[in-house]
Amino acid sequence: MTSGVKALAFDVFGTVVDWRGSIIKMGPAFSAAHGFELDWAAFADAWRAEYQPSMERVRSGEIGFVKLDILHRVNLEKVLNDFGVGGLSEAALDDFNRMWHRLDPWPDVVSGLTRLKTKYILVTLSNGNVSLMVDMAKRAGLPWDTILGAEIAGNYKPAPDVYRNAADILDLAPGEVMMVAAHNGDLIAASGVGLRTAFVVRPTEYGSGQSTDQSAERDYDVVATDFVDLAAQLQT
Amino acid sequence: MTSGVKALAFDVFGTVVDWRGSIIKMGPAFSAAHGFELDWAAFADAWRAEYQPSMERVRSGEIGFVKLDILHRVNLEKVLNDFGVGGLSEAALDDFNRMWHRLDPWPDVVSGLTRLKTKYILVTLSNGNVSLMVDMAKRAGLPWDTILGAEIAGNYKPAPDVYRNAADILDLAPGEVMMVAAHNGDLIAASGVGLRTAFVVRPTEYGSGQSTDQSAERDYDVVATDFVDLAAQLQT
Repeated sequence: MTSGVKALAFDVFGTVVDWRGSIIKMGPAFSAAHGFELDWAAFADAWRAEYQPSMERVRSGEIGFVKLDILHRVNLEKVLNDFGVGGLSEAALDDFNRMWHRLDPWPDVVSGLTRLKTKYILVTLSNGNVSLMVDMAKRAGLPWDTILGAEIAGNYKPAPDVYRNAADILDLAPGEVMMVAAHNGDLIAASGVGLRTAFVVRPTEYGSGQSTDQSAERDYDVVATDFVDLAAQLQT
Repeated sequence: MTSGVKALAFDVFGTVVDWRGSIIKMGPAFSAAHGFELDWAAFADAWRAEYQPSMERVRSGEIGFVKLDILHRVNLEKVLNDFGVGGLSEAALDDFNRMWHRLDPWPDVVSGLTRLKTKYILVTLSNGNVSLMVDMAKRAGLPWDTILGAEIAGNYKPAPDVYRNAADILDLAPGEVMMVAAHNGDLIAASGVGLRTAFVVRPTEYGSGQSTDQSAERDYDVVATDFVDLAAQLQT
């Protein structure tokens, strides 16, 4: 069911951008410039493994809302320590942390979004903070109509209020907003507050051995192979 | 002084769009369709005259924050009553109120913004709510990077926290953000919290007899005749 949908709300990390591949690509030049060695694939996975636990501290109320840049930075220092890398300057740590602002989109993204924008309002509904999303979009040419998500809602997905906030701020009914994500958990949570759902499979987000999110685990409104397929299925 | 500026934050009503001319242009078809007559120039001025007093109720704390669409709607019903127009359906009132979502930009805006976007982050810093700004931008082709302003900050300009919020959310120092407005009061408030300032004169925002905001009343960083001139002065 896609009739009546007016806005598409996109998960970003994994769905729009290839965070793992981008970090693996950017990493070697960074570590060479700063005089250390690192298994960048293992490091990317370890850094990302801290992501959900760090957001859970906010969702559970243990700490107040802080931007994802702050959580990423705390997690970076922990994981660098685990990997035995030390002595980086404050400026180097900042630059390292902002790798998340410079992630590359999957190859189908810009052409798919450009088509979808002719008919739908396109917003991010990501856990990334606004400045991260703005920097990423300007660098990659992602044509968002506006940036919504965690920082605007003051909580992290999959908390239901983050999805509700997006519909409220757009003055749309939940059923007029379609969540687009490569993660079943995100879509199930969005569906729980009445949003429509589109699953886009990203089978190598976690590398070639990925076992999760290889297929739609619910009866979503749309299941697409990539953003160009999504654009076609949504008649754009 | 324009060096170090990374983001341009735009006032919208009057600075980007010609609200008065647009309402005068849209009005006659609307009143003909609904079977009433109106002096649309006088009506536009009267509707806009309720704008600051209605926001002042929020700024003063008399009422909690509500979106500008809500304030516009309350003001619409009051001014329609003053003009002796009654009997409009709920749907017609809604459509009437959403004229603010369909305002036209001044003729220099799209070409100026397109040039400015190559070098700067472009955000709205308007009292208009997010859905209003998104609808307007899609219709008029305004290439914002994201929508900030009153609804995101939870207060109305010229309250200082609205300007501060924009810098904070972009992770920029106030001096890295330049407020662009056709209104001296807006720029003086922005300057008060450390933002840079650009005055763009819009001499007929209030019609041919406009007496206010005909020139820069302070020593702003930039004074421009329109957005194309602004783009040139900012080396884009």
